[in-house]
Amino acid sequence: MQQKGELISFRPDIKVVDCTIRDGGLVNNFYFDDEFVKDLYKTNAAAGVDYMEFGYKASKDLFDVNEFGKWKFCDEQDIRDIVGDNDTDMKISVMADVGRTDYKKDIIPKKDSVIDMIRIATYVNTIPAAVEMINYCADMGYETTINIMAVSTAQESELDLALDLLSKSKADVIYLVDSYGSLYPEQIRRYADKYIKVAEAAGKKVGIHAHNNQQLAFANTIEACAFGVSYLDATMSGMGRGAGNCYMELLLGFLRNPKYSLNPVLKFIENRILPLKKSGVVWGCDVQYMLTGQQNQHPRTAIAFTADKREDYFTFYQSVLDRE
Amino acid sequence: MQQKGELISFRPDIKVVDCTIRDGGLVNNFYFDDEFVKDLYKTNAAAGVDYMEFGYKASKDLFDVNEFGKWKFCDEQDIRDIVGDNDTDMKISVMADVGRTDYKKDIIPKKDSVIDMIRIATYVNTIPAAVEMINYCADMGYETTINIMAVSTAQESELDLALDLLSKSKADVIYLVDSYGSLYPEQIRRYADKYIKVAEAAGKKVGIHAHNNQQLAFANTIEACAFGVSYLDATMSGMGRGAGNCYMELLLGFLRNPKYSLNPVLKFIENRILPLKKSGVVWGCDVQYMLTGQQNQHPRTAIAFTADKREDYFTFYQSVLDRE
Repeated sequence: MQQKGELISFRPDIKVVDCTIRDGGLVNNFYFDDEFVKDLYKTNAAAGVDYMEFGYKASKDLFDVNEFGKWKFCDEQDIRDIVGDNDTDMKISVMADVGRTDYKKDIIPKKDSVIDMIRIATYVNTIPAAVEMINYCADMGYETTINIMAVSTAQESELDLALDLLSKSKADVIYLVDSYGSLYPEQIRRYADKYIKVAEAAGKKVGIHAHNNQQLAFANTIEACAFGVSYLDATMSGMGRGAGNCYMELLLGFLRNPKYSLNPVLKFIENRILPLKKSGVVWGCDVQYMLTGQQNQHPRTAIAFTADKREDYFTFYQSVLDRE
Repeated sequence: MQQKGELISFRPDIKVVDCTIRDGGLVNNFYFDDEFVKDLYKTNAAAGVDYMEFGYKASKDLFDVNEFGKWKFCDEQDIRDIVGDNDTDMKISVMADVGRTDYKKDIIPKKDSVIDMIRIATYVNTIPAAVEMINYCADMGYETTINIMAVSTAQESELDLALDLLSKSKADVIYLVDSYGSLYPEQIRRYADKYIKVAEAAGKKVGIHAHNNQQLAFANTIEACAFGVSYLDATMSGMGRGAGNCYMELLLGFLRNPKYSLNPVLKFIENRILPLKKSGVVWGCDVQYMLTGQQNQHPRTAIAFTADKREDYFTFYQSVLDRE
């Protein structure tokens, strides 16, 4: 395994993707007020962030629009209300889950949309459906990524087959996703190596989306980066489901490309993230998320533990172990 | 650089060192009540921790005993009041700062002490004095370590000379210390490689003491471990100066040696750490510590920022940059 670039240099292939609204939306059911989203948009553009993800393109047949904020659905007009024609160097992305998006209805041709990139989220067992969506979106004119979730529970042989199928798709980027925050840096390096070999041979890039259950989201992101992964997901102060994500402020402080600036991000944290936290929106590292991460489990039990304001970590751990 | 051991195996050379009282004492001026310390001692022993560090052997001529809790001084009797004759498999350590310990007065012969190991903390420029202390303590019968602080600001050529001097000392372990929490995993691997080459040739071991300014204390600890570092410092819930340390619960959840158990640690967090935090004792990752870490600065300005309950990160950052 070869390291790409040194700490002191920078690689022009690196792209920073802000997922605050999309992954953070999982914490507050996508109820962000427009001022927050507008300020985030300006902040990201000023900070040199390459892509800002607005949310999901969820099916309105499957999800009740009265139960979620608008960024669960990302109507074209709602995005335009924030970004106009997006007269910045930053690109706009949305996420579409396999099986939860009416993509033939809701994905309009790129020439009519302010969206630049569609990220398709899938599990290993729904890769064929994902490939269909990828190719549809690519044919509509979008950049596309494929985000294979929960790889830490997938069989390696199945993952190899999935990567082979994806290498033949029209996806521009293949994402390594540590859904449970269970992977250690040495595992991330092995996965990154596997993904990069497949992607490079097919003329594609690799991305990483890490979770912070074991305080490793930032470490895993920069380790993947050092070994050739180029699309790096982060969120403001790590806002995201459960233990949250890689912190944008840590990532921008690490990257050496002079296009990136920490200053606007610090102002956003002061002005928007602190009030959000004080209003009672909760995310971030805590013992319960560490325990599900260590045991390679979905964080749903830890999220419930948090919602119940429980602090009996020992008892919770016994139940986590029982689920094995 | 060669990785030592795989994730799934375990290395019998690994030693876990709990520094909760010593590094955590920097947060509360060493005012822990005896019940806390007794419970920590029992917890560490039950969790399989190899060494428990009680605090400093500070000079009572230099420091006023009325301004600090007793673990700043670690009188023999105070330790014995907690551990008796220490009838456990766990060893006891204390730290002695070069220039701040009356070691010829306060370090008694090992045969009369319940202390097993003395860790000598030094900067690169006080290595000769450190070597004198190391050899004195070794001759008194103790295991010794040398902890070279703030290596991220030392010149590499001076560090090489320091390591050469230390290789000829009687120290059993040479510690890599990331005092400012500024080092990234790839740097830790380079330092670890350097330390290990010197130490192995001299029949010594290497340890790591990491700080969590950039959420990298755990990542850096396990990366160093993967590349051959064997003495691993951690504290309960990361309690320690400023951003704190590597979390014991993360480390024990990672290590595969069946002697280690997470269960007693989870109970300790519930019963002792949560109440301590609720009482207003503050440590852990926050933006201000990230900023001093990113800029490779001592956290003292960030500690003052925290004490003042400030949240103007942007303004603080400008002052951090000004100090360059």
